Amino acid sequence: MSQSSQPDKPQVLRETDDAARLQACAFVRESTHGALATLEPGTGWPLASRVSLGVDVDGTPLILISRLSAHYGALEADMRCSLLLGEAGEGDPLRYPRITVVSIAQKVSSEKRAAAKAQFLKRHPGAAMYADFADFDFWRLMPQRASLNAGFGKAYALTADDLE
Amino acid sequence: MSQSSQPDKPQVLRETDDAARLQACAFVRESTHGALATLEPGTGWPLASRVSLGVDVDGTPLILISRLSAHYGALEADMRCSLLLGEAGEGDPLRYPRITVVSIAQKVSSEKRAAAKAQFLKRHPGAAMYADFADFDFWRLMPQRASLNAGFGKAYALTADDLE
Repeated sequence: MSQSSQPDKPQVLRETDDAARLQACAFVRESTHGALATLEPGTGWPLASRVSLGVDVDGTPLILISRLSAHYGALEADMRCSLLLGEAGEGDPLRYPRITVVSIAQKVSSEKRAAAKAQFLKRHPGAAMYADFADFDFWRLMPQRASLNAGFGKAYALTADDLE
Repeated sequence: MSQSSQPDKPQVLRETDDAARLQACAFVRESTHGALATLEPGTGWPLASRVSLGVDVDGTPLILISRLSAHYGALEADMRCSLLLGEAGEGDPLRYPRITVVSIAQKVSSEKRAAAKAQFLKRHPGAAMYADFADFDFWRLMPQRASLNAGFGKAYALTADDLE
């Protein structure tokens, strides 16, 4: 493991380079789904749930969720969330890269709904079946920082700027 | 969507039946990895991260994590967590079943470490390479309740008893 020259980071983190930034951005732009962590209202318990993902015109991750779901109520009560992206394959699941994107969720306004819907349906055409249901809304997940794990011993802490 | 006869549950939930219990238990017993939601110390932000999974002799999910990871510190500070299990395939990611198991994490004591290790290595033989590193510990994730989503309109709320 390389040592970081930044004294405020633990030694397990590597220096962020362009390869790490590119890998992180590819995860954010190309993932079709992820695991969303939210805070359960009332209990404050962390909840992990699956969301399908699109990207807004500016590259911000977009989700389409129902008011009937636990994560919708959680984000309404507390906009803090994070998104785990990346898939594991055969063998040790930790061999495969993944990223945790710490994000702030913001419901897409009615004015911007049509644009978000068009973007989302590019990746998930089947969602046209339910995108207009009254209980469904689009939310933007605005990245604040991220932890990229590119495999054993290859961990990076990324800023919001690194993800742009 | 069927209506629940239990007045304290929203109508989107189906009555829990043996098929739901079996599906839930299969996820818990057979998943090789999952997304773990924890609470970030200091900020309280919910973090989602990948963990590889085994099961202890009594069927309780087992993880093997490093002190250098964010989730280790999070679980040390607050044992509340949840585990998202289930994989998405081609097409709409929400078509595929998944479960969120709300859990309490407990570090495996040194007396029980050898048994936990033997159990974990059954599923992840490659983890023998790092299981004995000084910074790695086994933790049990004790299920408290769960939300099973068996596909569109098929949601169930399960108790700890349902998962046994």
